[in-house]
Amino acid sequence: MTAEIICVGTELLLGDILNSNAQFLGKQLAELGIAHYYQTVVGDNRERLKHVIAIASQRAQLLIFTGGLGPTPDDLTVETIADFFGVPLIERPEIIADIRQKFAQRGRTMSPSNHKQALIPQGAEILTNPIGSAPGIIWQPRSDKLTILTFPGVPAEMKQMWHEIAVPYLQSQGWCQEMICSHTLRFWGVAESALAEKVSSYLNLTNPTVAPYANYGEVKLRISARAESPEAAEQLIAPIEQQIKDIAGLDYYGRDHDTLASVVGQLLQQTHSTLAVAESCTGGGLGQMITRVPGSSSYFRGGIIAYENGVKMALLGVNPSDLEQWGAVSESVAQQMALGVRSQLNTTWGLSITGIAGPDGGTETKPVGLVYMGLAGPDGQATSFKFLFGRARGREWIQRVSASSALDVLRRMLLSA
Amino acid sequence: MTAEIICVGTELLLGDILNSNAQFLGKQLAELGIAHYYQTVVGDNRERLKHVIAIASQRAQLLIFTGGLGPTPDDLTVETIADFFGVPLIERPEIIADIRQKFAQRGRTMSPSNHKQALIPQGAEILTNPIGSAPGIIWQPRSDKLTILTFPGVPAEMKQMWHEIAVPYLQSQGWCQEMICSHTLRFWGVAESALAEKVSSYLNLTNPTVAPYANYGEVKLRISARAESPEAAEQLIAPIEQQIKDIAGLDYYGRDHDTLASVVGQLLQQTHSTLAVAESCTGGGLGQMITRVPGSSSYFRGGIIAYENGVKMALLGVNPSDLEQWGAVSESVAQQMALGVRSQLNTTWGLSITGIAGPDGGTETKPVGLVYMGLAGPDGQATSFKFLFGRARGREWIQRVSASSALDVLRRMLLSA
Repeated sequence: MTAEIICVGTELLLGDILNSNAQFLGKQLAELGIAHYYQTVVGDNRERLKHVIAIASQRAQLLIFTGGLGPTPDDLTVETIADFFGVPLIERPEIIADIRQKFAQRGRTMSPSNHKQALIPQGAEILTNPIGSAPGIIWQPRSDKLTILTFPGVPAEMKQMWHEIAVPYLQSQGWCQEMICSHTLRFWGVAESALAEKVSSYLNLTNPTVAPYANYGEVKLRISARAESPEAAEQLIAPIEQQIKDIAGLDYYGRDHDTLASVVGQLLQQTHSTLAVAESCTGGGLGQMITRVPGSSSYFRGGIIAYENGVKMALLGVNPSDLEQWGAVSESVAQQMALGVRSQLNTTWGLSITGIAGPDGGTETKPVGLVYMGLAGPDGQATSFKFLFGRARGREWIQRVSASSALDVLRRMLLSA
Repeated sequence: MTAEIICVGTELLLGDILNSNAQFLGKQLAELGIAHYYQTVVGDNRERLKHVIAIASQRAQLLIFTGGLGPTPDDLTVETIADFFGVPLIERPEIIADIRQKFAQRGRTMSPSNHKQALIPQGAEILTNPIGSAPGIIWQPRSDKLTILTFPGVPAEMKQMWHEIAVPYLQSQGWCQEMICSHTLRFWGVAESALAEKVSSYLNLTNPTVAPYANYGEVKLRISARAESPEAAEQLIAPIEQQIKDIAGLDYYGRDHDTLASVVGQLLQQTHSTLAVAESCTGGGLGQMITRVPGSSSYFRGGIIAYENGVKMALLGVNPSDLEQWGAVSESVAQQMALGVRSQLNTTWGLSITGIAGPDGGTETKPVGLVYMGLAGPDGQATSFKFLFGRARGREWIQRVSASSALDVLRRMLLSA
């Protein structure tokens, strides 16, 4: 069984969007143990797409298409595939019903052009799209010699359809021999190079493999094991994972889909404590990170976005003379913001952020990237923490890393308490 | 002149790295006005790479390769190309000297394996690598019928070689008569299918072309014109852009790098007015969107994250009996939140969001995805707006689209005021 990935879209050729779908599918095929030797990108053009199908169907037994399933005239993947194999398109009422219902959910009415999305080749199965209006197909146009899967180009839709429908289908066909299991260990507060040195001996392992990644201030180690069953793979991973956790100590914060916010949330729930935030330079980004976690309402009461100094004084009770003397970006103000929001919202913990996100507003003594966190706890005392994130990576990065670092400050406090 | 991009590397097939080189080269070719219809990714395998060269050299006159120029045995791009055209490899002493000197600069000695990188096809020119050890080639193996360019896979090296050497070369060959200029028009509050139907006559244009895209509730139209100069391209785009804006009316909000937050910010600055936000289900996401814009401190004072009902009452003055009677997700509470934050922070406008982001908390009458926005204005009056985002796309999507929709509510109010 050999697979081939075909991504359809002039926007890909023009470089308007990055082809992350091909990377996702390549990784998935590798994990399923399905060989895959070529990827092709082609524009929204019938003749060229047919040409690609002709070549790929000679090289592979499984063709995976992404893109070109939308309602507009330049979306022509499915009709071109049907045309290539000389099979008529049939309008499927269940697709019309599904699209109509999705539009209704959002108080909208389906457009005539959406009818196009209900046309699929005679004999093809519908690959249901649980999110958007564009369904895919599972089709064997030449008995079982060739299998075709189509997915929309929107990554979120493609990924969910892949996990929920395509993977079980591929496994049911017996096309997934060996498989790869992976776990990602997540770290905060340590540099990638520093962590890589600490665990250097593990980076040369062959099964499982251990590979470091880093982005937005977070460092990850991906442990991947190749085995015949998930259980066998997990048994290869478990001891390595434990040894790495022991080496990393508090810098390790979670695994796979954990986030700093979800881990802090679990710790708050375990300790039956509540949290409120006071944000200046992050402008709500910390609260957003916390409330992205389902169920966060059980420990997060809310916060105050004190973007302007007047708000820091009026709503957080920051002392005007301290603002005057030390400036908004200072230990003292960070602490008063944390204490203020804790008492205003009557919570166990108050967490604050005040800093200079840039690009303007930096000075000699207070450069862009200087951020203070304040943490007020059950004892009614506040501590502050100073961070220098630098200006190089820009405003959005500083805001995002500030919010994560604030959560990490609270995480370490909760773990050491 | 037609070009084709061939990216070589098993790590691309395995999804270990994202193919950003293909996006960069696609964008560059479009801007240079060199047509480009196919991209292929192939692994580090001689026979398969030859197969790809055979196909591509039939379709295009310019083949652009990235990857496989390193010193290790699996780097076989150049030797495979030479092999395909039956031309011997020649060791070029100037490459050896260049590599040796680069190693010396870093206090290292060149390793024997690097000699491999000095082998290029007889008759090929060296495409110098100013950064790394791997040079590329510029080669016309069949007189001037076919031109081959090779680049290393490392993006920084590939990009600098492209800009400094490849672009001047392509221009000197007279292959870049035309160039493409593009602008993206941005819309909010209209479905992709609905907008596409309104502007359907434009979707069939050939120069400029008009293509629709959609993500996270936003719809975009990309207008691309092919012309001999940027000025000429802009002249082709301008009238079409104006006509589409006239058709779209208030659904059009911005262009290219505009965001709803930046556009609202400009409107607030123009009207010398200020803004405060009250957030429930978005938990700070609206404030974050606003403060992501540099300089937002000139109109954004801050806000209150009233995630819990107690906070809605204590800090926003929401009437307990209304909370009791109508529930937190209601017109009345949305309006009171907007009025409350406007008076608390003493701003021109108060904007609020209260809704059910899910996955839990939905009911028959108030399903997941139901969100109310409240807007309190200079006249001290508040209005509310009801949205049904559906549950299908999940919590994060509902939170993000809610924040954007709240900004759109304010944008339309500021424009109609």
